[in-house]
Amino acid sequence: MQNTLLTLDTPAAVVSLPRMQLNIERMQRQADALGVRFRPHVKTTKCAEVVAAQCAAGATGITVSTLKEADQFFGHGVTDILYAVGMAPHRLGHALDLRQRGCALQILTDSVEGAHAIVDYGHTHGHVFEVLIEIDTDGHRSGIKPGEPALLEVGRVLHEGGMQLAGVMTHAGSSYELNTPAAIAALAEQERAGSVLAAESLRAAGLPCAVVSVGSTPTALEVASLEGVTELRAGVYVFFDLVMHNVGVCSTDQIALSVLTTVIGHQADKGWAIVDAGWMAMSRDRGTAKQSHDYGYGQVCSLDGTPLEGYVLSGANQEHGILSLANGVDGDIVTRFPTGTRLRILPNHACATGAQFPAYEALAGDGTVQTWERFHGW
Amino acid sequence: MQNTLLTLDTPAAVVSLPRMQLNIERMQRQADALGVRFRPHVKTTKCAEVVAAQCAAGATGITVSTLKEADQFFGHGVTDILYAVGMAPHRLGHALDLRQRGCALQILTDSVEGAHAIVDYGHTHGHVFEVLIEIDTDGHRSGIKPGEPALLEVGRVLHEGGMQLAGVMTHAGSSYELNTPAAIAALAEQERAGSVLAAESLRAAGLPCAVVSVGSTPTALEVASLEGVTELRAGVYVFFDLVMHNVGVCSTDQIALSVLTTVIGHQADKGWAIVDAGWMAMSRDRGTAKQSHDYGYGQVCSLDGTPLEGYVLSGANQEHGILSLANGVDGDIVTRFPTGTRLRILPNHACATGAQFPAYEALAGDGTVQTWERFHGW
Repeated sequence: MQNTLLTLDTPAAVVSLPRMQLNIERMQRQADALGVRFRPHVKTTKCAEVVAAQCAAGATGITVSTLKEADQFFGHGVTDILYAVGMAPHRLGHALDLRQRGCALQILTDSVEGAHAIVDYGHTHGHVFEVLIEIDTDGHRSGIKPGEPALLEVGRVLHEGGMQLAGVMTHAGSSYELNTPAAIAALAEQERAGSVLAAESLRAAGLPCAVVSVGSTPTALEVASLEGVTELRAGVYVFFDLVMHNVGVCSTDQIALSVLTTVIGHQADKGWAIVDAGWMAMSRDRGTAKQSHDYGYGQVCSLDGTPLEGYVLSGANQEHGILSLANGVDGDIVTRFPTGTRLRILPNHACATGAQFPAYEALAGDGTVQTWERFHGW
Repeated sequence: MQNTLLTLDTPAAVVSLPRMQLNIERMQRQADALGVRFRPHVKTTKCAEVVAAQCAAGATGITVSTLKEADQFFGHGVTDILYAVGMAPHRLGHALDLRQRGCALQILTDSVEGAHAIVDYGHTHGHVFEVLIEIDTDGHRSGIKPGEPALLEVGRVLHEGGMQLAGVMTHAGSSYELNTPAAIAALAEQERAGSVLAAESLRAAGLPCAVVSVGSTPTALEVASLEGVTELRAGVYVFFDLVMHNVGVCSTDQIALSVLTTVIGHQADKGWAIVDAGWMAMSRDRGTAKQSHDYGYGQVCSLDGTPLEGYVLSGANQEHGILSLANGVDGDIVTRFPTGTRLRILPNHACATGAQFPAYEALAGDGTVQTWERFHGW
């Protein structure tokens, strides 16, 4: 049976294909204009059809956050894969297996001990790993700061140990905390300059550094120049979400992911409609709570995707969502949203909401829906 | 290969079998002492082996939050199932199918329109549904208040419409917001008294009401008497978690679920170890944030499960957790937790954390691990 939004069971994770395609083209155009390769981060979707669309638009490889993602997409024919999480020594065997089967998997480290572990494992197994050094350009997580002596030491351990020192990468994840184009552009320049400085330090020390890889969705969209950079990465741009809307890099009508839900009851005196999208569907992500506009667990939209101003999921239990006005009580909630009404909820965080579902329901412009599986776990 | 905590890939959702068994026996003893049936809520685990252990200890049926849970556990031989979420009209066909295949599925409504939908569908298909009326005893979500005229009206629509009016049920979910035995016991009495009052109103109006079903983990454990109640329900007690610890109904050494993780790097100057359990593993649940003790994304434990006082996951990205002191900077973080160190993290909310994993790793007292699948989605 050909499903539509009226026949799908709820809750369901609906992807608007026209919006997704525009988002993919927008980011690819941006990378093309900046003169760099584009390597989308597939952790957002974990979905073969989405990644196929990203590659068809011009992506030249992918970024993954787990080796399961690498396994899955290598199985779908993607061979150029950056594993962008610091390499745990116990996973080197898994990485070696992927490489020996023909996957051009790049791995990452940000410490001397991590570099030694890679070199030792490579020697033991007669294998040359392709390694990037993670650079910390904004202090939000992992990486070596561009000026730190450890950078050259890690580079030397890898290079002199016979590994292929491929380059440097950074991720300015603190861009999610900003909300003006100027601030994002300034962070993007900091991300660019820091990674280029790290690359130049390595080269000045006689070490190879072909790749300079940067990116986060906000910085990728607001950066003015990527001089010295070779590669851009971004993930959540493919769907966008309310957090990105508050950051200022998309409008709500560019958000391609929504959760289809059904009204199952009311508490009329409180102005509540109860829906079957609770936190199991939306995820527990409350990323907009600390932003300029708090959308609760999500922005309520009509079935055609139009935001219903002021209506949010104000609370969530596992399989119950509480739909109400964000401010005030709607005395007409029962007649406005009778039991059985279908609505769509824009999520705070597309990566977290998508992960709650075994599949996306891909909604074409003609209203028909195809089921696209996504994978789960490690 | 027989896995142990040293051979599992990370992150992994580890269930301590001795702790789980003690939790199961504790709640079953409580129901037995109170003289009521016990119907565990399986939404916490969605795992056949856990539910088998609950049934072996004396549970006389199960509670589910989705019809997929009903499908799955009916497939495992459980026939007595309460679907404890208000019935959406579009799901009546699914419920009918389960009942026609031999599942004694009870369904729920809290409105006149919902009751009419059930009656109409039952008439059309020549089927008598077994229906409970949801009672609101604490204002936290769905249900009809015990004294509301709608209660009798819903009862009459169902009964006179030829459905089997089985009884009433309530869930005092606001118990999660309490933290003293006296306050929980008072809410438990409110839950009991409200549901019994509703049952008595129905009976006084000449309507049947055999079942009076109540419960939440905190109220179930603190209630002194269940006079007039026939059935107790609880879910998260089987694993417990840090939220329940803050509520005051378990100690940390009764928490049966933890996330096994590996240290993958450090930011020494900040006192951070980076681990491979981010929010994708822990979930985005920050349930302890508004409680007396905020554990961040979880309490850090050594590999044997001993809490390491003061160390929490203070931050989380998708596949990165930031492990640090909750207060202050540990200048020895790199030597204390070298790269490759394996740790276990107690979660805020066992229902949310479990849902992030395709399987539990069931850890026996002898240190061996079996993989127990859990299902995902709707």
